Amino acid sequence: MSGPPSEATLLVLDAEPPPRLGTLTGRVRIEHADESTLAERLPSADVLLVWDFTSHAVRRAWPGEGPRPRWVHTASAGVDHLMCPELAASDTVVTNARGVFDQPIAEYVAALVLAMAKDLPRTWDLQRQHEWRHRESQRVAGTRACVVGSGPIGRAIARTLKALGIRTALVGRTPRTGIHGPDDLDRLMARADWVVSAAPLTKATHGMFDARRFGMMQPSARFINVGRGQLVVEEALAEALSKRWIAGAALDVFAHEPLVRESPLWEVPGLIVSPHMSGDTVGWRDELGAQFLELFERWQAGRPLPNVVDKQRGYVPGH
Amino acid sequence: MSGPPSEATLLVLDAEPPPRLGTLTGRVRIEHADESTLAERLPSADVLLVWDFTSHAVRRAWPGEGPRPRWVHTASAGVDHLMCPELAASDTVVTNARGVFDQPIAEYVAALVLAMAKDLPRTWDLQRQHEWRHRESQRVAGTRACVVGSGPIGRAIARTLKALGIRTALVGRTPRTGIHGPDDLDRLMARADWVVSAAPLTKATHGMFDARRFGMMQPSARFINVGRGQLVVEEALAEALSKRWIAGAALDVFAHEPLVRESPLWEVPGLIVSPHMSGDTVGWRDELGAQFLELFERWQAGRPLPNVVDKQRGYVPGH
Repeated sequence: MSGPPSEATLLVLDAEPPPRLGTLTGRVRIEHADESTLAERLPSADVLLVWDFTSHAVRRAWPGEGPRPRWVHTASAGVDHLMCPELAASDTVVTNARGVFDQPIAEYVAALVLAMAKDLPRTWDLQRQHEWRHRESQRVAGTRACVVGSGPIGRAIARTLKALGIRTALVGRTPRTGIHGPDDLDRLMARADWVVSAAPLTKATHGMFDARRFGMMQPSARFINVGRGQLVVEEALAEALSKRWIAGAALDVFAHEPLVRESPLWEVPGLIVSPHMSGDTVGWRDELGAQFLELFERWQAGRPLPNVVDKQRGYVPGH
Repeated sequence: MSGPPSEATLLVLDAEPPPRLGTLTGRVRIEHADESTLAERLPSADVLLVWDFTSHAVRRAWPGEGPRPRWVHTASAGVDHLMCPELAASDTVVTNARGVFDQPIAEYVAALVLAMAKDLPRTWDLQRQHEWRHRESQRVAGTRACVVGSGPIGRAIARTLKALGIRTALVGRTPRTGIHGPDDLDRLMARADWVVSAAPLTKATHGMFDARRFGMMQPSARFINVGRGQLVVEEALAEALSKRWIAGAALDVFAHEPLVRESPLWEVPGLIVSPHMSGDTVGWRDELGAQFLELFERWQAGRPLPNVVDKQRGYVPGH
C-alpha cells in the first residue's frame, strides 16, 4: 500500500457517527454514506470505515463502476457481511476490529455455560410462578468443552472456560500446538459437554453445525453459537432440541438478524435466544472508535496496518 | 472423646435414608428418627447424624432429659439450625460437611455474577415476548467484589471470581494474610461492584446486611446471599432495590424456607430468587453420605475427627 494522498477522503458508512471522529478534522476530508448513497460515493473515497457493521451495503456496492478505496476497516470481528469476489480480488486492504470483542465474548460464553449448568432459566420461570422448587444442578469444573474457532475470540473463550476448571479443546482450521485441526472435530464434539461455535463465517464453515453433528453430541450436552448465524443449520438445531438429541443451546447470532417476531426459534424448548450482544459491553463503541483512530494514524504515517484480513480465507490469519 | 462403645447406636434424623448407610450393618446399631420421635430416641444414641439438615428438631429436642450423643454430624456447612445453649455447653462433638459445597457454591455465585453482568434475566423476558432488543452489557473483568465469609466456601468463591479477572477482597471475623477483618467491611462494601454473603450465621453476623450497609453500596452494585437468610434484613434489601440504592440482588437463602407463595420477595424488582440450591450439584447426597462414612470410620477407630465445629463461634475455625 503506497502512502496516503495529500487530501484524502474518509468515507464513513454509518447510522450514527463514530465517537471522536472530529479529532481528524483538517487531516482528512470526512464524508458519510448510508446504504442508499454508498455506491455513488465509493469512487471518491480513499478509506472506507464500515461503522454500521450490520449492513451488507458494501458487498452490494463494491462491484460497481469507478475507483475503489485502498483501505476498508470494519468495526466488527467478522468480515462476511462485506466480502465479495471483487473486493477479495482487489488490492484493497481490509482490516477488522480484532481484539475488542475477545474478553467480553469469553465472559458471555461463561455466563451461558454457568446459567445452563445451574438451571437459571428454570429458576426465573419458577420465580415468576412464586414456586419454590429445589433442583440439583451441575458442576462445570471437570466437564469438557470443545471451542470451534481458534482466533483471538475462541482462544479467549478457551482461557475463560479453563479458568472455571472446564477441560477445553480448541479447534481451528490448521492444527498447531494446543489447537486441533478439523479432522478432530467430530471426535471432540462427541465427547464434549459444551460445544461453542466462535468460528469466522467462510465457505468452509458455512452450515458446519448440521443434523449430523448435533446427532453425534451427547444427550446431556449443550451448544452455544457466538460466531455467525450461518455456521448453524438452524432447523437442524431446533429439531435436535425438540427431539432431545442435546440438552440445550444458546444462540446469540442468527442467519437473519434481527430475528423476526414470527420466527419459531423464540419458542424452541431449551433454546436461549439473545440479540447478537455477546461482545457489546459498555464502552464498546468507544473502543471501536479508538481502535480505528489508532489504525488511521498508522495509515496516514504510511506504517503497516495490523488486523489485516486474509480476503481469501475471510479472517485475520492467526499466530 | 473416649472410644466408641462396643455396641454403639447411630441415630439418623432423616426423611430418606442416606446412601450406603447399609455398609455399616453389623458395626453399629442404626436407628431412625423424624421430628416427632427425635426427643424420645436421643438418650439411646451414641452418634446423631443430622441428615435432614433443614430440620430444627435437634435444637428443640436437645435440652430434654437423659443422656445425649457424644458426636453429632450434620450434612450441611452451617450449624445454626441445630445449635442451642445446652448443646454448646455440652461435651458433645459437632462436625459439619465442610468441603462438599465449596466448589459448587463458588460456581453458582459466578453464574449469578455473570448472569447479572450480561443481563440474562432481561434476555429471558424479551425472548418470551419474541422481542429482539440489543443492549450493552458489562464486563466483569476489572470489577471489584467483596466476599464476606472466609471459610472454605468464601475462599472458593474468591478464587473463582479472581479467575474471572474480578478484583476480590475476602472479609472474615479475624484479619489474617489475604483476609480482611470486620473493620474493613464498610469501606470494601462501599467500593464493591459485587457483595457476596457467604458467612456462617452467628450472633455476630445476624442481620449484618441491613439498610445502613445497603445504603453505602454503589447504585450500580449487586448483592448476593448464599450464606443464611438471617444474615440479611430482607425488608431492607427489598427497599434498597425498590428505591434503586443498588442495581440488583440474588438470594438463594431466606429467613423462612421454603419461601411461601405469598412472600413479597418473589416480586421485588431486580431480585433473583432461587430455592436454596447453590451447593447442591448432581451427586451431592452421595458426597455427603461418603463424607459421613469416612468420619464414622475414624470415630470408630478412636481417631480424631476433622471438621469439628467451634460451638461457641458456630463454625469450624479456619486456616
